[in-house]
Amino acid sequence: MQEESINQPAVVAEVELQFARYERALTTNDTEVLDELFFHSPYTVRLGAGENLYGIEEIQAFRASRPAVNLDRCLRNTVITTYGETIAVCSTEFTRETTDKVGRQQQTWIKFPQGWRIVAAHVSLMS
Amino acid sequence: MQEESINQPAVVAEVELQFARYERALTTNDTEVLDELFFHSPYTVRLGAGENLYGIEEIQAFRASRPAVNLDRCLRNTVITTYGETIAVCSTEFTRETTDKVGRQQQTWIKFPQGWRIVAAHVSLMS
Repeated sequence: MQEESINQPAVVAEVELQFARYERALTTNDTEVLDELFFHSPYTVRLGAGENLYGIEEIQAFRASRPAVNLDRCLRNTVITTYGETIAVCSTEFTRETTDKVGRQQQTWIKFPQGWRIVAAHVSLMS
Repeated sequence: MQEESINQPAVVAEVELQFARYERALTTNDTEVLDELFFHSPYTVRLGAGENLYGIEEIQAFRASRPAVNLDRCLRNTVITTYGETIAVCSTEFTRETTDKVGRQQQTWIKFPQGWRIVAAHVSLMS
């Protein structure tokens, strides 16, 4: 990977679009889009605020059982960085009206023939 | 990115070596190696257990002030996955004798001309 390939505007625009789709799906509990955007693979990892999920099947089961309340959140300090034309990392902090704790979400996205997919994600509340 | 490019043994071996170097440096507080393995860029993000750091300068300042005690930890459920020849995600849980909480660490590594570097990391204690 060459450093000059970082943040090519056309690539950043593609990822920003998918990141926004994911955020909208998350806060409206649109599980179809959430499932579309996670890479369907046994290698996909999602470390959540209260659970560690290995492989798309565990992630899908978690989505199906997730309570669809208090999903609204505000993002801040969002950083989207692309490397070359097929890799992106999206980091963001988030706050909710229901808690004083600061949340953090970091996702690694890779562009496959079927589109941009999240191959790894980690969500936590700051200690 | 083609799915067939996932986990090529030679690439996985390279990343495993650097992941082990990082872990050894972390638990011995070898700040020189820790600094070597983080990508020296304003885009590098490290969301830590108790701090959110943006850019290599904030990360370096944090390393310099980090207390060098109680660093020992045991890893479990470590998953290293490579995509193509220049991308890897390393996820792991960890435990320490000093706490019952389960820690999680997820890193995105990219191979630059100077070697494999961490471009994003997120460390947290499970809520």
